[in-house]
Amino acid sequence: MSDKNSIKGILAPVITPFKKDLSPDPERLIAHCKWLLSQDCGLAVFGTNSEANSLSVREKIDLLNSLTAAGIDPSRMMPGTGSCSLSDSVELTKHAVNSGCAGVLMLPPFYYKNVSEEGLYRYFAEVVERVGDSRLKIYLYHIPPVAIVGITAGLVERLMKRYPTAIAGMKDSSGDWSNTKMMLDRFAKSGFDVFTGNETFLLANMKNGGAGCISATANVNPAAINRLYREWRDPDAEVQQQNLNNIRKTVGQAMMIASLKNIVAHYSRNPEWITVRPPLTELKKEQANQIIEDLEQLNFSMPGLDAFSK
Amino acid sequence: MSDKNSIKGILAPVITPFKKDLSPDPERLIAHCKWLLSQDCGLAVFGTNSEANSLSVREKIDLLNSLTAAGIDPSRMMPGTGSCSLSDSVELTKHAVNSGCAGVLMLPPFYYKNVSEEGLYRYFAEVVERVGDSRLKIYLYHIPPVAIVGITAGLVERLMKRYPTAIAGMKDSSGDWSNTKMMLDRFAKSGFDVFTGNETFLLANMKNGGAGCISATANVNPAAINRLYREWRDPDAEVQQQNLNNIRKTVGQAMMIASLKNIVAHYSRNPEWITVRPPLTELKKEQANQIIEDLEQLNFSMPGLDAFSK
Repeated sequence: MSDKNSIKGILAPVITPFKKDLSPDPERLIAHCKWLLSQDCGLAVFGTNSEANSLSVREKIDLLNSLTAAGIDPSRMMPGTGSCSLSDSVELTKHAVNSGCAGVLMLPPFYYKNVSEEGLYRYFAEVVERVGDSRLKIYLYHIPPVAIVGITAGLVERLMKRYPTAIAGMKDSSGDWSNTKMMLDRFAKSGFDVFTGNETFLLANMKNGGAGCISATANVNPAAINRLYREWRDPDAEVQQQNLNNIRKTVGQAMMIASLKNIVAHYSRNPEWITVRPPLTELKKEQANQIIEDLEQLNFSMPGLDAFSK
Repeated sequence: MSDKNSIKGILAPVITPFKKDLSPDPERLIAHCKWLLSQDCGLAVFGTNSEANSLSVREKIDLLNSLTAAGIDPSRMMPGTGSCSLSDSVELTKHAVNSGCAGVLMLPPFYYKNVSEEGLYRYFAEVVERVGDSRLKIYLYHIPPVAIVGITAGLVERLMKRYPTAIAGMKDSSGDWSNTKMMLDRFAKSGFDVFTGNETFLLANMKNGGAGCISATANVNPAAINRLYREWRDPDAEVQQQNLNNIRKTVGQAMMIASLKNIVAHYSRNPEWITVRPPLTELKKEQANQIIEDLEQLNFSMPGLDAFSK
């Protein structure tokens, strides 16, 4: 359950920079995180857009250690810690809690399909019990287009009842506003923090008692998304929302992760950023250029990025 | 590409025994593997039916070490080593090769959906290059109902062309015979060993130049499946196939993994076997009993199991 100190607002599933040999580059990650924090954007490292499932637990622990060692405030972090394997999820979640992270964003185990609500309940319960730490705050991660396995209201209800402090909220990346609305209606009053999976639903989420959004696009457009989060009651909120949607549509005209890396490579003038781990592939040159051209038509920029770029 | 020493015939994706605390039980795994070998059944440990994706890489390495330390012949093993993470797949594959395993069964990275053939090609190529060992034999694992991400003929062709010795074959668990037939027609003559994902297609596979099958049901019915593998040219092959199908249908009337564990628990008189890791759940009592009753109607037994049970 949420309290007044819970992490809220806008978070980016921080893209993970790779070197030519496909190993993660902690220095560039630190720099990008510092820029995001300077834009008041929280750090959902190890999310879908971070290629987190293409990393080992060891690689994620090492990256998290690099971030905290560099002075990045863990109270602004919500690392993704869910994997198919109970053992892996427990290990990484423990490490995140011990590092002082505000919370963890947890995928359901996603290899087996058509598993029962009871099985998923047991999985999350087992993680909570094994982590065994009152500081644990789990945000359940519902992303059926990718994980296929989803988080149902029945599951949320059972988990909240049994673990009222550990079950803090969810990220809804279903892309289905009616699902988000249903979760808000059922659970927001009990202090369950609902984040939308992208900023398209940010205004609607705030109007209905939501906590913010965790959006891929926040990697490149954090300030404008944050502005709507702060100013959603203002008369120009609808216009702001429309502008955010236009940027998102432009960024998302190609595969989102490759597109974000292309944009950061361009604005930080560091072509190393385009590297993705297989099975993903970087954008084709023409597509990459088209996105930058289209963004410039929208007067897009990444202010202050230069100061942090390595 | 296959050679005359390649592993062929019937393999079981060996079910993984857990203790009450959900940790793997190496002693019971060793015993079950010894029984399977006594029935001339190869060991596809760490498959889908092994709950392998519910284990960490460390847990799998420890189990593999326990098996080889117990004298289980690695030339009869084809461990599953594919995961979403390139780093994890490389680590476990290296260990399998260094342990002397006959081959590895490799899932495609299955978190991201709708990835390109180029991306999957790069992933497998990267694994081959990083393992960098001429003993490596990869069997590509096509199981679209679970992994969603699949193995296409175009991918097989590209990989075989570039890595003719490392790309040894595939397991087709699509459940779609026309897909298996297409793979056989295109690649079997080049020495690419096609295993069907269950014994229902065993006779058809052998008639069309296939290498055998890797089937869940081989955990409990290995001798009869092996008999058809040896005798598929005999006049009673169709009858044998029908009998195998009847057993499979009975075993598979409930969730396959839970059902297999229920059957082994019953015939080894060790109720600990029913334990599954979340998100899976054990069978309900009535369903568990029904399956045993139905199997007894078919005169099913697990001969010799007692001698190996712990």
